[in-house]
Amino acid sequence: MENFIYSIPTTVYFGKGQIENLAEIVSQYGKKVLLVYGGGSIKRNGIYEKVTAILTGAGIEWEELSGVDPNPRVESVREGAAICKEKGIEVVIPIGGGSSIDCAKVVAAAACYDGDAWELVTNSSLIKVALPIIAILTLAATGSEMDHIAVISNMTTNDKIGTRANCLRPKAAIMDPTYTESVSAYQTASGTADIMSHTLESYFSNFEGYMHDRMAEGILKTCIEFGMKAVENPHDYEARANLMWASSWAINDFLKLGKPVTWSVHPMEHELSAYYDITHGVGLAILTPHWMRHVLDDRTVEKFRTYAVNVWDVSKELPAYEAAELGIQKTAEYFKAMGLPTRLSEVGITDDSKFAIMAEKSAKKLKGAYAELSKEVVEQIFREAM
Amino acid sequence: MENFIYSIPTTVYFGKGQIENLAEIVSQYGKKVLLVYGGGSIKRNGIYEKVTAILTGAGIEWEELSGVDPNPRVESVREGAAICKEKGIEVVIPIGGGSSIDCAKVVAAAACYDGDAWELVTNSSLIKVALPIIAILTLAATGSEMDHIAVISNMTTNDKIGTRANCLRPKAAIMDPTYTESVSAYQTASGTADIMSHTLESYFSNFEGYMHDRMAEGILKTCIEFGMKAVENPHDYEARANLMWASSWAINDFLKLGKPVTWSVHPMEHELSAYYDITHGVGLAILTPHWMRHVLDDRTVEKFRTYAVNVWDVSKELPAYEAAELGIQKTAEYFKAMGLPTRLSEVGITDDSKFAIMAEKSAKKLKGAYAELSKEVVEQIFREAM
Repeated sequence: MENFIYSIPTTVYFGKGQIENLAEIVSQYGKKVLLVYGGGSIKRNGIYEKVTAILTGAGIEWEELSGVDPNPRVESVREGAAICKEKGIEVVIPIGGGSSIDCAKVVAAAACYDGDAWELVTNSSLIKVALPIIAILTLAATGSEMDHIAVISNMTTNDKIGTRANCLRPKAAIMDPTYTESVSAYQTASGTADIMSHTLESYFSNFEGYMHDRMAEGILKTCIEFGMKAVENPHDYEARANLMWASSWAINDFLKLGKPVTWSVHPMEHELSAYYDITHGVGLAILTPHWMRHVLDDRTVEKFRTYAVNVWDVSKELPAYEAAELGIQKTAEYFKAMGLPTRLSEVGITDDSKFAIMAEKSAKKLKGAYAELSKEVVEQIFREAM
Repeated sequence: MENFIYSIPTTVYFGKGQIENLAEIVSQYGKKVLLVYGGGSIKRNGIYEKVTAILTGAGIEWEELSGVDPNPRVESVREGAAICKEKGIEVVIPIGGGSSIDCAKVVAAAACYDGDAWELVTNSSLIKVALPIIAILTLAATGSEMDHIAVISNMTTNDKIGTRANCLRPKAAIMDPTYTESVSAYQTASGTADIMSHTLESYFSNFEGYMHDRMAEGILKTCIEFGMKAVENPHDYEARANLMWASSWAINDFLKLGKPVTWSVHPMEHELSAYYDITHGVGLAILTPHWMRHVLDDRTVEKFRTYAVNVWDVSKELPAYEAAELGIQKTAEYFKAMGLPTRLSEVGITDDSKFAIMAEKSAKKLKGAYAELSKEVVEQIFREAM
């Protein structure tokens, strides 16, 4: 186990009706807030109405940044930061999934920064301070509610880049699993694939971490137990609650502190999203099994066998490669069973002319990854996934 | 999953040499500290010398409360609180395992309280504020370094009582696994049994928590993987590191938030410690298999089977009771293999005249437990464990 500093101070209000604590939480930090959200779903399902009623009741003023895209754009960040500066906003409250929260994080930092917001995305070290963030989660997927990372897209340059700073970690997160009951089966499946991918990114590291791996397997089993259940019955509270809690722990640093690794599949998927604007979790579900097959070799086979045995209940009596391949196959089958596409062509990616440049960009980010794939191999993975 | 509020803000400095951060951490809170420790072990292994050199170098003044007993006494707490008040102490720094840290916690609270320290033990609600605590851990066992609980003994009344308050959770913990390399095989085994017991106390709850249970199984597997290794090779860093990290997560609330339960075996063991002053982890190791056998019935057999299969690798093809009993047997065998006593008579408890009153005291604390055992059953468990 490597040295680390653990600091995850986010206070989580988890469960039905926890929104009732909102006014008290906000009041610790200020009286003027910015609500950040995406489309109209929070208006349809009553969350917007509830939140604004609570704020009104507590004498808290608010401004709004709405229309945040699924892959949040730097333009939204700039708009939000301008509102914060103009209106003297003290607290940023994203309501939604990772897109709204990621956008809100960089808004909170850009509100305290004199230059252009995109600089904070391309250079994390410029983020020194941010307004406090209180996340209201409506989708179990990215784990942004408890981590210190934000991923922002710039469609003019086809860049989708993650930035990070400790001050971006939300001070508090309100996590009511009933809020996710209106999430579609497709988005539920996609979110589950995202949680599993975050977990796998840390699981496959060249550093040892026995306890880390057992914790990761527990989160993966939770996704497997409940992903399908939530897809089949959107009102299954235990499924929604377990997925929501798993989403936070897959990426809040717990799995990687002491067992560092550069992620593998996310850098590849970010290129897909940046060039084709596809759903992030879907891209991960398509790419992951292909990445696994390319990485499986004599050096990694025992780890893949452990994965297969501990997560997918594959018999440990099988020869190592057979067990490992069965684990990979079951991973792919599970994504498919949840209703996710298995090929890039199914999500409209039929033009491979960008694959070379995308592969070059992602291969550059694989230094320190479980396997440092060349741009040629990454391109091959894109092609095989078509 | 039940509603909960998650708030574990302790910053952990984990790994070799993290003591170098001490001065910077302390300086966030003050310049006058109280060191709290037990016998002379921290002087023999050089930790005391290192800590005081760092404090001296940073111009931080210190007072000392030494001689804290393994089951820390209220007399030590009173002494520490008096020093704090007299000397204007700003930060309390326990150096040791749970005994020193638990003692330091109530010292930190009593330093801010006008009445007698024992009142804070018998009535948690009186603890409103405490001096900041920075724990330097030298033993993987109680998890006190990351939780909000302190257990204090009063030998004049034969009471061993746990008190708790959010302000008792250490602000920071320095966890260097090499500090535990000088811990004896017996204490290492005892600490491992303590970690396992904390985990089991949360695992066996009448509330559902799928993810919680998988996390608990991961911690149990970590103890099983490394307890024996650390007993056999005290300098096995991976073993020491995994046990140390497991000790914190077994009890820092993560396993029980959303899945509440009143503990079962600890209340029984606390009576043993209070009347016979035995090593806490040893008492737990002796009692746990007996408790399990008494609690195993048609209502609980599936949970015990899951435990046996997921933690002890028992075949899931076996009939439920057979699997469950094998899991219990393996639990007992593991404690024994680590060199722990299996009977109370081995630790000098041959007089059963106190069992009735001890059983009555512990049975009262079992409301809300996995099984609400009567005082008669508890007494029977004590007798069977002799």
